[in-house]
Amino acid sequence: MKLDQSKHLLIVGLGLLGGSYAMALKKQGYTVSAITRDPESIAYALEHGLIDRGTTDIDEDLIAAADVVVFALYPHVLMNWIREHGHLLKAGTMVTDVTGVKGCVVYDIQAMLPHGVEFISAHPMAGREVSGVQNSDDAIFRGANYIVVPTEKNTSDAIELCKDLGKTLGFASISVLTPEKHDTMIAFLSQLTHCIAVSLMCANDDPDLVQYTGDSFRDLTRIANINDEMWSELFLANRDALLHEMDEYRATFDRLYEYIKIGDRDSMRDMMRLSTARRREFNKKA
Amino acid sequence: MKLDQSKHLLIVGLGLLGGSYAMALKKQGYTVSAITRDPESIAYALEHGLIDRGTTDIDEDLIAAADVVVFALYPHVLMNWIREHGHLLKAGTMVTDVTGVKGCVVYDIQAMLPHGVEFISAHPMAGREVSGVQNSDDAIFRGANYIVVPTEKNTSDAIELCKDLGKTLGFASISVLTPEKHDTMIAFLSQLTHCIAVSLMCANDDPDLVQYTGDSFRDLTRIANINDEMWSELFLANRDALLHEMDEYRATFDRLYEYIKIGDRDSMRDMMRLSTARRREFNKKA
Repeated sequence: MKLDQSKHLLIVGLGLLGGSYAMALKKQGYTVSAITRDPESIAYALEHGLIDRGTTDIDEDLIAAADVVVFALYPHVLMNWIREHGHLLKAGTMVTDVTGVKGCVVYDIQAMLPHGVEFISAHPMAGREVSGVQNSDDAIFRGANYIVVPTEKNTSDAIELCKDLGKTLGFASISVLTPEKHDTMIAFLSQLTHCIAVSLMCANDDPDLVQYTGDSFRDLTRIANINDEMWSELFLANRDALLHEMDEYRATFDRLYEYIKIGDRDSMRDMMRLSTARRREFNKKA
Repeated sequence: MKLDQSKHLLIVGLGLLGGSYAMALKKQGYTVSAITRDPESIAYALEHGLIDRGTTDIDEDLIAAADVVVFALYPHVLMNWIREHGHLLKAGTMVTDVTGVKGCVVYDIQAMLPHGVEFISAHPMAGREVSGVQNSDDAIFRGANYIVVPTEKNTSDAIELCKDLGKTLGFASISVLTPEKHDTMIAFLSQLTHCIAVSLMCANDDPDLVQYTGDSFRDLTRIANINDEMWSELFLANRDALLHEMDEYRATFDRLYEYIKIGDRDSMRDMMRLSTARRREFNKKA
């Protein structure tokens, strides 16, 4: 199957990401339908032209008519959906997702789906500090990374199709990782950073801080404004990898603490120079 | 003394901050001169109209002609300068600084200056991840905080004059703190955040991370690009307060670690909700 405007895309779960997918796909001329729990989300998406059809029902015809199904659900909701309704997916359908952790869902979903339905997992590394379809914005994909996360069961056709979907959505960079490498990487780059921001925000209750803050503190804690339902689930779904990254980071922090305590300025400066050199590599390329 | 365009301002130390002060003051019509060590900095500042006069010498006439002297030097360089040349400051001169820590310099400087020369300390909470007069930009003051840090020795006239200087430079908010409260606050808001960013950057040497990073990691580590000479001195000059804030933060981080480890999702979510509520207060007011 090749992704072109003749294909029908079904989005299951119309939140911020599902809605932003719909927005991007409609702009590219695709037929987009949606299934979600909240009737207000459907009403909003229809009214704003994000979808062509939508329902809160498990509509068998809509599911059967879809060439590509994108699940934009929390991990446990996705697992439950596949368990209960996965048999409704017709052979030849390509199924993908947006889940932020992979090891705990990918293999189980591939094992549960009916013969002929291929699940190719993906992680769009984009988001906002707000949720809900009303905040949909396909601009969040520009300049961002889209990671395709295949297993040995996936065909090269499905991997290509999933890459095409990432390009169609407008992502700047498309890459491919194994579930294990993905989860290790995400534990450090995304989950640990959220743990740090939350901890920093909870560590000091002085109400006067606000009026003296600078941009460094604001930047560092931007993600401390966090969806607790989603992130607590993601943390626990990737617990071992996250705890490992937390250990490594804490050991480094403790090392710097010790240098400050004993006044070892040379070692402090060595760390700062390493930090500066590494950080430069992370600047966005113009 | 009241700050108006008849006053001569002397800036000692033409780096990023000194140069940005000069730029802002010249735009407001003040006469600005400078003393700094590097002849290239003087040449640049003259060529770009940041100053009216400048020299690498300890020019007694220039010092005597100044109504207001702003020291934009590292803490130990400032202390040495006052110790060696402080006697050249004429009675009636108002002296201020930009130092990022206060307790370790303010009292000593006030004790060292000649009779009739008042030192009123200030901390402009603005900067960039680059240094040098060539990167001067008075836009860094817009929207930023300027903190006046008086001791019991300061007159209300000097405090008002220093506030006026902050306003003239273009700062959005001017406030007043004791040296002790300033150092506690800065240990948390500024120094701890730099410790965190440096530690995070040093905690993982996987070269593949760059291609998978998102904006959260970039935001959190922006300040990991750090001037090691300046910050190692600032950390050690405020060691006790910084170590205390590092302890508090680490205890909070360890608490979150424990919740994740034992799977206590309710407690994780409590922390995330507290973090979210607090962080909202830090959003910039429109």
